[in-house]
Amino acid sequence: MHTLYHHPMSASSRYIRLILAEYSQTIELLEEKPWERRMKFLQINPAGDVPVLMIDEGQFICGGVTIGEYLDETNGAMQREKRLLSEKSLERAEIRRLVDWFLNKFNSEVTGYLTHERVFKNFMSVEAGGGAPNSNIIRAARANLKNHMKYVSALAASRDWIAGNKISAADMAACAAISVLDYLGEIQWEDEPAAKDWFARMKSRPSYRPLLLDKVITLPPASHYTDLDF
Amino acid sequence: MHTLYHHPMSASSRYIRLILAEYSQTIELLEEKPWERRMKFLQINPAGDVPVLMIDEGQFICGGVTIGEYLDETNGAMQREKRLLSEKSLERAEIRRLVDWFLNKFNSEVTGYLTHERVFKNFMSVEAGGGAPNSNIIRAARANLKNHMKYVSALAASRDWIAGNKISAADMAACAAISVLDYLGEIQWEDEPAAKDWFARMKSRPSYRPLLLDKVITLPPASHYTDLDF
Repeated sequence: MHTLYHHPMSASSRYIRLILAEYSQTIELLEEKPWERRMKFLQINPAGDVPVLMIDEGQFICGGVTIGEYLDETNGAMQREKRLLSEKSLERAEIRRLVDWFLNKFNSEVTGYLTHERVFKNFMSVEAGGGAPNSNIIRAARANLKNHMKYVSALAASRDWIAGNKISAADMAACAAISVLDYLGEIQWEDEPAAKDWFARMKSRPSYRPLLLDKVITLPPASHYTDLDF
Repeated sequence: MHTLYHHPMSASSRYIRLILAEYSQTIELLEEKPWERRMKFLQINPAGDVPVLMIDEGQFICGGVTIGEYLDETNGAMQREKRLLSEKSLERAEIRRLVDWFLNKFNSEVTGYLTHERVFKNFMSVEAGGGAPNSNIIRAARANLKNHMKYVSALAASRDWIAGNKISAADMAACAAISVLDYLGEIQWEDEPAAKDWFARMKSRPSYRPLLLDKVITLPPASHYTDLDF
């Protein structure tokens, strides 16, 4: 059994947990608080970030996109119809474009700011940059979120799943990122019915269930977070 | 022949140009100015960013990491010894960790800021966020750069190449990112002899030659940019 260093409010960590659950792989979870910059963890991943997958004593795979590719090569390729990457290069490129979108672009414009300001700063000392949330940053991130949700709706309205007609790693990445914001009550679902319909399908999958149990001390989830008919 | 939408000051664009040159593929280059947010280009890549590879009429691959994977699948896999991704999953993971480091982390902490402040803002209207560079941002990015260069030196001192004992896509990504900063005269080479030795080897490769000819109007390269014995 592999071990995953993760944080419940990290979209990339949730991405890997969803993929592992889709492939029916059980995993030991170790919660890591990246803002603590723990020396032993920095030796494992100099980037200082989660997720990190320990596949064996002293063998680590770092970063959501990289772990996702590793799991496809070592696991997904044997999953036939359940594989989350296509067999075709052009379709793989479309899936990867959207994985990158939700784990990197969306994170750098929305999720990263909102989790930092609303969650992580609560736990950080003032010297380390902790303290009260910056309302200007939150406002800018929420404006960006509106545009991203329009894009999710446009994708969901024009395709069966995020990257095409088959469920893929792109759905896991989009769902991972959006589920963190859903926990924080940041999504105005009534504005985006197509995105909501897609997310409801994702939320009712068995792979999503463990995410419903995630909790951050001092910050309970939004009231509809565990509701499958939100 | 493929067509690449690129910008000379985009590390991810240079990454793809280096890979194509290593695989002896000629390419048509189209310079795109992402800050103009040209409507036709946004329809091709909603992320609005370079590089984008046009492989056929109406078929586009978006983003440095994604194009890199596509080129490995359609080209690299047939290159035997010259392939820039390993055949082994664990080695591939280490290469991908470092490609992600230089195209995403390094970009979001260093290259993105320095090119935006020192290059792109010159060409942008005031309404679009153009104007004089912000010296606080430049100072912060330069402080980050020092730490990243120490990491490059540590890698270069402990391995033959950036990701291990064989040249790989990680060298192309690191070289692409650092070459943009070298153009801007941002690298203090005398501080990092191990990184300098590695970069001199990269710079003397035939694949690097086209990058030596890159020019940005109004901003000539640093005096040593084209010097192979810098």
